[in-house]
Amino acid sequence: MPQPKMTPGLYFEDLHVGQRFKSRTHKLDAGQIKAFAAEFDPQPFHMDEKAGENSLFKGLSASGWHTAAITMRLNVEGGLPIAGGIIGGRGELSWPSPTRAGDVLHVENEILEITPSRSRPDRGRVTVLVRTTNQHGETVQTFKVILVVPRRPG
Amino acid sequence: MPQPKMTPGLYFEDLHVGQRFKSRTHKLDAGQIKAFAAEFDPQPFHMDEKAGENSLFKGLSASGWHTAAITMRLNVEGGLPIAGGIIGGRGELSWPSPTRAGDVLHVENEILEITPSRSRPDRGRVTVLVRTTNQHGETVQTFKVILVVPRRPG
Repeated sequence: MPQPKMTPGLYFEDLHVGQRFKSRTHKLDAGQIKAFAAEFDPQPFHMDEKAGENSLFKGLSASGWHTAAITMRLNVEGGLPIAGGIIGGRGELSWPSPTRAGDVLHVENEILEITPSRSRPDRGRVTVLVRTTNQHGETVQTFKVILVVPRRPG
Repeated sequence: MPQPKMTPGLYFEDLHVGQRFKSRTHKLDAGQIKAFAAEFDPQPFHMDEKAGENSLFKGLSASGWHTAAITMRLNVEGGLPIAGGIIGGRGELSWPSPTRAGDVLHVENEILEITPSRSRPDRGRVTVLVRTTNQHGETVQTFKVILVVPRRPG
């Protein structure tokens, strides 16, 4: 049997400013949009096509938190291969365009800044621009996040 | 039969700086944490107690996106009664403390800034500090978000 393709996690020392990582794609449909909205963001324009058309979004649109959650999934599954996992404490989030049924999303990550910790020699802070894009090349989300990244042990 | 308690939506004119709104509570358990993580953030420290204990979080912790999604639900269900819905384009997000199984969360919202739109007389921008707190009074999330809020029609 073929081995699953494992992306080895990268440590603080393995990262440099300007480095880029790209995820696989995820195809979104109306069922996913409505199911997420029903559980976490039950506003009419995320639940119903007609209500979406009569809203600012001019059509059914996904909750921004759904876009964020899909982005995280894509990054956890290899889009952003950080050793020890993706652990962010804060960031700046934006949703420049709506996410819609039929969208095929992927994530591109770029390392913007690398800062060793003064108090903790075993880790550092890495600022990443996480950009989620649809099949038309439109950006549906950006998240500029500060991650905690461990140094290579030993 | 008793009528459901409806919170009337507030328009741009109804809001003022310093105004506060509070949501109901939501109790989180390990099942909810693991189910969300399995779907959107399948990292070991959100899926398994032992892995959580061996992580930075020192215990099973919810995905930050799960905390964000619950916060949205609480605000949509009356925590932040804006006419036309809660529509945010960008904001600053932070997770100062982990969210854990057994946590009882609620949201407090404070209006920070109100700006009429120059180009669109039918709406304005309202900056809200959305703070999610657990039963110990610890802040588990802040989101300083800029909302689009309609003016009262007519």
